[in-house]
Amino acid sequence: MKDYLECPHCGRPVRVYRNPFPTVDIIIEMPAGPPGSGREEGAVVLIRRRNPPHGWALPGGFVDYGESLEAAAVREAAEETSMKVRLVGQLGAYSDPERDPRHHTITVVFVARGEGRPRAADDAADIGVFTRETLPEDIAFDHAKILRDYFERWLPKD
Amino acid sequence: MKDYLECPHCGRPVRVYRNPFPTVDIIIEMPAGPPGSGREEGAVVLIRRRNPPHGWALPGGFVDYGESLEAAAVREAAEETSMKVRLVGQLGAYSDPERDPRHHTITVVFVARGEGRPRAADDAADIGVFTRETLPEDIAFDHAKILRDYFERWLPKD
Repeated sequence: MKDYLECPHCGRPVRVYRNPFPTVDIIIEMPAGPPGSGREEGAVVLIRRRNPPHGWALPGGFVDYGESLEAAAVREAAEETSMKVRLVGQLGAYSDPERDPRHHTITVVFVARGEGRPRAADDAADIGVFTRETLPEDIAFDHAKILRDYFERWLPKD
Repeated sequence: MKDYLECPHCGRPVRVYRNPFPTVDIIIEMPAGPPGSGREEGAVVLIRRRNPPHGWALPGGFVDYGESLEAAAVREAAEETSMKVRLVGQLGAYSDPERDPRHHTITVVFVARGEGRPRAADDAADIGVFTRETLPEDIAFDHAKILRDYFERWLPKD
């Protein structure tokens, strides 16, 4: 798509091509807890976003030019959760132009195993570990759909 | 990543953010042929590229801003092969910064069933239907790796 920027020097329009923005999101799997802990089954890490759109979300962010999706996923997980993660696979790519209210992003979602204790950092105002039964109500973007796909399609065959 | 364009009016540099370019590629599955046809097993459509990098490649191209990956895959398949395709799933996303010698692209690869007869169009100088045994030698980008993943990981469980 053609788009225009304003030249900061002469103020006239400069034509640029606009593409959807590539992003990654990471489903970080935490070890199950002991019986009675409420964490007997799969639990995942979500962050509460500091910036709009507000709500809980998977850790994730933009892919840099020259950076692979895998490198971006490991980097973003570390930046937002302070965890070192080991990627185990791709859940899939999500690209509905309306999935982010700010602009058109395409995300590739990775499943990963987390090491260490999650600590909120960077864009994350808070952090939590949730099972399917304890997921928060206010989930940003299309991350509720992504989590449903994970719990229904990925976890059973894992 | 920050990058600079030259303003076409005043010639001075205009800062732009540069992201990897999102693309799609499509593995179009053709019906198997009769015994003795050499097409008894899975066969896929490849195009011979009109533009550099030359060689055979999966049909595919850039995702437009505001367009889903699925819509881009159906559109690109139609533009380059003249076929109507029905998507059956995602093989995965490939993002090695070196996968395209021209610039950093991230591709999401779809598997699809094709209807109609493949006819080369748009960027395609020629078109062919190949099985794993008859794949051409000169395959552009990382499409040989993608096809290996398809034949080794996707097809057996299909």
